[in-house]
Amino acid sequence: NSQLKIFSLNSNNPLAQEIAQEMGVELGKSSVKHFSDGEVQISIEESIRGCDVFIVQSTSAPVNEHLMELLIMVDAVKRASARTVNVVMPYYGYARQDRKAKAREPITAKLVANLLETAGATRVIVLDLHAPQIQGFFDILIDHLMAVPLLSDYFKSKGIPEEEIVVVSPDHGGVTRARKMAERLKAPIAIIDKRRPKPNVAEVMNIVGNVDGKVAILIDDIIDTAGTITIGADALRAAGAKEVYACCSHPVLSGPAIERIENSSIKELVVTNTIQLPEEKKSPKITELSVAKLMADAISRVYENKSVSTLFD
Amino acid sequence: NSQLKIFSLNSNNPLAQEIAQEMGVELGKSSVKHFSDGEVQISIEESIRGCDVFIVQSTSAPVNEHLMELLIMVDAVKRASARTVNVVMPYYGYARQDRKAKAREPITAKLVANLLETAGATRVIVLDLHAPQIQGFFDILIDHLMAVPLLSDYFKSKGIPEEEIVVVSPDHGGVTRARKMAERLKAPIAIIDKRRPKPNVAEVMNIVGNVDGKVAILIDDIIDTAGTITIGADALRAAGAKEVYACCSHPVLSGPAIERIENSSIKELVVTNTIQLPEEKKSPKITELSVAKLMADAISRVYENKSVSTLFD
Ligand SMILES: Nc1ncnc2c1ncn2[C@@H]1O[C@H](COP(=O)(O)O)[C@@H](O)[C@H]1O
Ligand SMILES: Nc1ncnc2c1ncn2[C@@H]1O[C@H](COP(=O)(O)O)[C@@H](O)[C@H]1O
Repeated sequence: NSQLKIFSLNSNNPLAQEIAQEMGVELGKSSVKHFSDGEVQISIEESIRGCDVFIVQSTSAPVNEHLMELLIMVDAVKRASARTVNVVMPYYGYARQDRKAKAREPITAKLVANLLETAGATRVIVLDLHAPQIQGFFDILIDHLMAVPLLSDYFKSKGIPEEEIVVVSPDHGGVTRARKMAERLKAPIAIIDKRRPKPNVAEVMNIVGNVDGKVAILIDDIIDTAGTITIGADALRAAGAKEVYACCSHPVLSGPAIERIENSSIKELVVTNTIQLPEEKKSPKITELSVAKLMADAISRVYENKSVSTLFD
Repeated sequence: NSQLKIFSLNSNNPLAQEIAQEMGVELGKSSVKHFSDGEVQISIEESIRGCDVFIVQSTSAPVNEHLMELLIMVDAVKRASARTVNVVMPYYGYARQDRKAKAREPITAKLVANLLETAGATRVIVLDLHAPQIQGFFDILIDHLMAVPLLSDYFKSKGIPEEEIVVVSPDHGGVTRARKMAERLKAPIAIIDKRRPKPNVAEVMNIVGNVDGKVAILIDDIIDTAGTITIGADALRAAGAKEVYACCSHPVLSGPAIERIENSSIKELVVTNTIQLPEEKKSPKITELSVAKLMADAISRVYENKSVSTLFD
């Protein structure tokens, strides 16, 4: 068998460290620096000839910086005669630009897939893509992991009586995800049904399903500016929910997100560490769960050529 | 004939404006904004169906930002049914990473060429690539313009007696460029020959050619931190040059460049506007020449399917 090597780039070094620890290996020696003019300078400081290389990088903000680091690293690894070049992207940036919603829009999620292949990636491991269809943007193998089991287990461990829980999707697009969590928690689901009665009239929040007297758990894939989730939480409280939790896979948390969450009726926001939270985005309301074990298992299975699909259902 | 459209991105809008003016057309309506999380949001605000589209963007600093803007714009233009997608890159970033100088280095200049093709570029117009071989990194058509005529004409207009001029290459790699300028100025050349006698011993500057009592014109493609050029100027003065001018196509001018130039024995530095100089990089010692007419001519000729090679020799 060829040798396994895991490299970290700059977006989420603590997660890469944790993954390596889980697997009982050391991270490969490399560095990402910048020339005086800001161009990325990659150096790989050990031989990787014939190896199965895994590069851990989330394309979180600054997304263009992190994506270019990744593409340049893939190029360098390929040219250093690695046997396979596996890209581990716990967070896949630009995933929301996955279709032309208006005329003359780019489809950047597809562009990114093509760029990765062009650079020389031979396989990709991702977690909770904004739309599962993005898997089909790749012609190379892609493994799609899910954080729902991890998030569900956390809520189970809180000991909330099963019959009090309702899992809530903040919009129509997220119902499948809510359904998956509800199954694991043996709970019913509800949906926040936003409707704009007329153009330029405020949206109406209508809750489909019963939340009265219940503990509501909002689940989304990405929480970005946190507008949807905090307004949704208020609507749930107004509809009689006694407590509102929220959770997501990818805490983008840009702009006013932290302030909104802290001032909201959300009791606790549970996120994963696919995106590294800088100090100023930490909050007593936010709990971080680690996907390191999940990613480590996926890497091991890919490396040993075993099925990854048993890692989630 | 199909319609011509020129779009500008964010790296060098004044140059794009000037190019459009030279051609007597308006720039296409578009904008590059950012979503709250920093992802690039492109919008093209007029139909370009069936058009020959030219996108003007230098991949100067912040290079990763400007390159991703360009790739996403190319994707959007392609998907908006343009007939051809022509990328006009007055400055081609990452050009210095054009070979593996050490083990396990990337070849980012080639990666960038591949990324542009993958995004959908059908033709590329560039100016003074760091190495002309980079043309061969593209499988699509590439037009390679030169600033030597523009720079030479400027020095001619200064009225320095021909027999006093010597054109100087700051290193071995730039001799061909110096030769081209020398022909236009009917002047001899000299070369600064740096040599490190032993490892960890300071470099020795040896000037090949006669500069004593002459007006030396240093020419390079890129001036970045300005170390080479300012040390070279001092060496020329020490060897008896009575005045030292310097010129380049691409004023990267990072880090200590401006300070070094201002404190150097360089009398005047002549650059082009392939890279937009921010206010803090302007200096009374620096003269900017515009490549707008040159780029406009190239665009017109490509559009009219005429030879571009007559624009330079
Ligand atoms: N980074 C982003 N931040 C906010 N909106 C985005 C972003 N990227 C794409 N979009 C837009 O979000 C919409 C897709 O979101 P969704 O309906 O949740 O799938 C599309 O109309 C995109 O134009
Ligand atoms: N942006 C940059 N700034 C400084 N040096 C660079 C840059 N990009 C590449 N290089 C290095 O510069 C060398 C090429 O420069 P040259 O010898 O002038 O062609 C290579 O060894 C590169 O590793």
